[in-house]
Amino acid sequence: MASKLIAVVAGVGPGTGASVARKFSKSYPVVLLARKPENYEGLAKEINSNGGKAIGISTDVSDPSSLKNAIDAIKKEFGNDVGAAAAIFNASGGFLRKPFLEIPTEIFEQSIGVSAMGGVLFSQSFLPLLLNGIKQKSEHPPSLIFTGATASVKSNAQMASFATGKWALRALSQSLAKEFGPQGVHVAHAIIDGVIDIPRTQELLKDMPPEAKLSADGIANDYWWLHTQPKTNFTWEIDLRPAVEKW
Amino acid sequence: MASKLIAVVAGVGPGTGASVARKFSKSYPVVLLARKPENYEGLAKEINSNGGKAIGISTDVSDPSSLKNAIDAIKKEFGNDVGAAAAIFNASGGFLRKPFLEIPTEIFEQSIGVSAMGGVLFSQSFLPLLLNGIKQKSEHPPSLIFTGATASVKSNAQMASFATGKWALRALSQSLAKEFGPQGVHVAHAIIDGVIDIPRTQELLKDMPPEAKLSADGIANDYWWLHTQPKTNFTWEIDLRPAVEKW
Amino acid sequence: MASKLIAVVAGVGPGTGASVARKFSKSYPVVLLARKPENYEGLAKEINSNGGKAIGISTDVSDPSSLKNAIDAIKKEFGNDVGAAAAIFNASGGFLRKPFLEIPTEIFEQSIGVSAMGGVLFSQSFLPLLLNGIKQKSEHPPSLIFTGATASVKSNAQMASFATGKWALRALSQSLAKEFGPQGVHVAHAIIDGVIDIPRTQELLKDMPPEAKLSADGIANDYWWLHTQPKTNFTWEIDLRPAVEKW
Amino acid sequence: MASKLIAVVAGVGPGTGASVARKFSKSYPVVLLARKPENYEGLAKEINSNGGKAIGISTDVSDPSSLKNAIDAIKKEFGNDVGAAAAIFNASGGFLRKPFLEIPTEIFEQSIGVSAMGGVLFSQSFLPLLLNGIKQKSEHPPSLIFTGATASVKSNAQMASFATGKWALRALSQSLAKEFGPQGVHVAHAIIDGVIDIPRTQELLKDMPPEAKLSADGIANDYWWLHTQPKTNFTWEIDLRPAVEKW
Repeated sequence: MASKLIAVVAGVGPGTGASVARKFSKSYPVVLLARKPENYEGLAKEINSNGGKAIGISTDVSDPSSLKNAIDAIKKEFGNDVGAAAAIFNASGGFLRKPFLEIPTEIFEQSIGVSAMGGVLFSQSFLPLLLNGIKQKSEHPPSLIFTGATASVKSNAQMASFATGKWALRALSQSLAKEFGPQGVHVAHAIIDGVIDIPRTQELLKDMPPEAKLSADGIANDYWWLHTQPKTNFTWEIDLRPAVEKW
Repeated sequence: MASKLIAVVAGVGPGTGASVARKFSKSYPVVLLARKPENYEGLAKEINSNGGKAIGISTDVSDPSSLKNAIDAIKKEFGNDVGAAAAIFNASGGFLRKPFLEIPTEIFEQSIGVSAMGGVLFSQSFLPLLLNGIKQKSEHPPSLIFTGATASVKSNAQMASFATGKWALRALSQSLAKEFGPQGVHVAHAIIDGVIDIPRTQELLKDMPPEAKLSADGIANDYWWLHTQPKTNFTWEIDLRPAVEKW
Repeated sequence: MASKLIAVVAGVGPGTGASVARKFSKSYPVVLLARKPENYEGLAKEINSNGGKAIGISTDVSDPSSLKNAIDAIKKEFGNDVGAAAAIFNASGGFLRKPFLEIPTEIFEQSIGVSAMGGVLFSQSFLPLLLNGIKQKSEHPPSLIFTGATASVKSNAQMASFATGKWALRALSQSLAKEFGPQGVHVAHAIIDGVIDIPRTQELLKDMPPEAKLSADGIANDYWWLHTQPKTNFTWEIDLRPAVEKW
Repeated sequence: MASKLIAVVAGVGPGTGASVARKFSKSYPVVLLARKPENYEGLAKEINSNGGKAIGISTDVSDPSSLKNAIDAIKKEFGNDVGAAAAIFNASGGFLRKPFLEIPTEIFEQSIGVSAMGGVLFSQSFLPLLLNGIKQKSEHPPSLIFTGATASVKSNAQMASFATGKWALRALSQSLAKEFGPQGVHVAHAIIDGVIDIPRTQELLKDMPPEAKLSADGIANDYWWLHTQPKTNFTWEIDLRPAVEKW
């Protein structure tokens, strides 16, 4: 029963998360997770008024009890046997581009707490629902997709607070791909290498053509493409960057 | 004018190349390159009788004069101002899985001649047509796609004759992606990690479910997806493997 | 003044840490950090009775205040202007090789707490002493060396609790190498790929020749080699494995 | 018998090759291979007059018959049962930093001919002597060392003519390390990431301190260190760069 299959997006905001949620809401009820309600309320309203279904749940992915509450709320809404067709981890935490010795411990704790531990906790929370999605005969293999960054594969000077969490998250995604692929869950990792075109980045790359920024809707299309790959042809990792990007 | 845009596939045979040609033939006239006519004749006939257009040209991609002949034949057929919407390099040469000291020099010459030099010569021959595709206002960014393998990123014992050529080809694709991306040509590399389900591999993995092999049509779909990515969101590299593959 | 230059080893036990401490104790007073005194007491005694100088400090590298205590104890012993010629991070935390959904959260917290956060905290604590080592005109560039593992570059099924922390640590080491190399501190990362020959691994690989295991003293020699590289020729990363190892 | 053990260096010139030859000549008679006699004559004279032993042989590593001649000359000089303690491949061929479509085919043929095919032919020629070195009870495991570059792991725009050959060479070295390590031959690959301080680069980085360039003698020390690693602790790959290098 399709109505038993949901898509979950952690880390919705005005960028990638929102675009991904919109895209997947065309096929599944979507659950929007963010710490602050203002990050999902407008989006949930938009999706609901466009004929989709969305609920938002205030969630801190670095906190096991907060994730437990989210799962409880989801089961209350969609039933105890709810399955997930997709779970997308798009969250990231504290990051400060500064000389290493000037970065407060808390920044590292937040970054590693959200990207590394948050990725682990999110996966432990939603893999049971993804496995349940197989039983519910989801049309496409249930998908667990992680959003990475340039800093997932390259760790530059002053980038340690971001890169430590992102490398850990990539390691998690690779291990899970190898463990859960054979069970039918498609685990993928996307290296977003460039500036995404969202309100927050409006002032960046102003002297460049608009196509110098990644399209958030484009990323959502690519995540959907990953989701629709059949079991014979799983991709673990893609990189995504504007054509003009230097790399 | 769409009729001026072709897709070229080098290395057609009963597997990936044929599936890719079929897929792209739904949108473009396709040019099939293979050394032996028996590798493209049936396929060309099939595509032509299914409402598409295909021509085959006997070509050795490791030989500059043979590639020059191919370009001449293409221009004779499609006009001097022909553009390419896609050029797909799917060829590979000699390979022997044997102790290193037992491998004849010629095997290495063939492998490196086709994968490394062949990749270079193919790219030098068709990049002008791909750049011309931009002028012809192709709907999707003209795409140059290279088929890689597990041995493109891992070089195991006794695999040197294959891996040397494949690593060189991957290097080529990365350099071209960086040089021609900003010019509007999408250069991509696909790591095919597993056994492809084609007649030649029928006897392999017989004790496994059919989904233990990669689908050649699935690969073609993924190449098409790469081709349709907009300039804001180019992928250089994807890996593709069956869900049950150990890696 | 050489007496102002120390070497610090975090994560001493009966293996790599002890061998590294012995090696560096031939040139510097060594500070041994471990959570449990039984892990450094015998070693400190051995070094002191062999003509070297060693002190042990009970330290939890995942705890900022514990590291602060260690720094205070070091300054009390060696003076406020103490410099470090080498700081070696050899610690690692909780790890359970089990299906992902059966691993308790605490295991991940320990692994990430020690490998990722511990690496960060250790570096923030000792980089000031390493920078001080430059002022003290250390003979060799002060060195910050991190012990990695196979799981630092490959994240296999059921290895996520180890790999997440190790990938984060590798990211840290790369960022620090880029930031502190130009300041004269040599930051390096060693991928230990194989079983180390220590009492705890006595039962492993029993049907193989003794050389199938890595020598801990050999690793110490390699760390010393890294330490003695001049500023013109810094190595960031080495891998180390037995000749017979499959990889 | 030590007199039966030689070291071979392919690609001697005024830089790394010469430094490596000098270093290894302190322990072994050295054979210097270069296409042009002027590249080895002075060095051979220098080594011979400093108490070492060196012979130069005019050799084109991309030509099987030229390598066969070199082997014949070596056997004539050192006996048919000569063993090699070390064989170092330091050659590289044509390279042009230009837009891809402006690079003549011959440049690629030279680059791939020397780096890829040359590496293969050199290895097939000297691995039998290295295996013979084991029988001759060489003090250190016989070593086959390949000189790589930044372009061995990164393939930038306009660098394809260099990177294709260098990636192929790295693939070769990894495969050989896996095949011949268990047989007792140590195969290693060095990523030289920076400008080497040799006469030819005198004009480069003039506004930087001298330590901004790699020391060729330092590289030779590092190759010697690789050579002396015991069978328990083989390194396949090291990177080497000046402390101030941006990477």
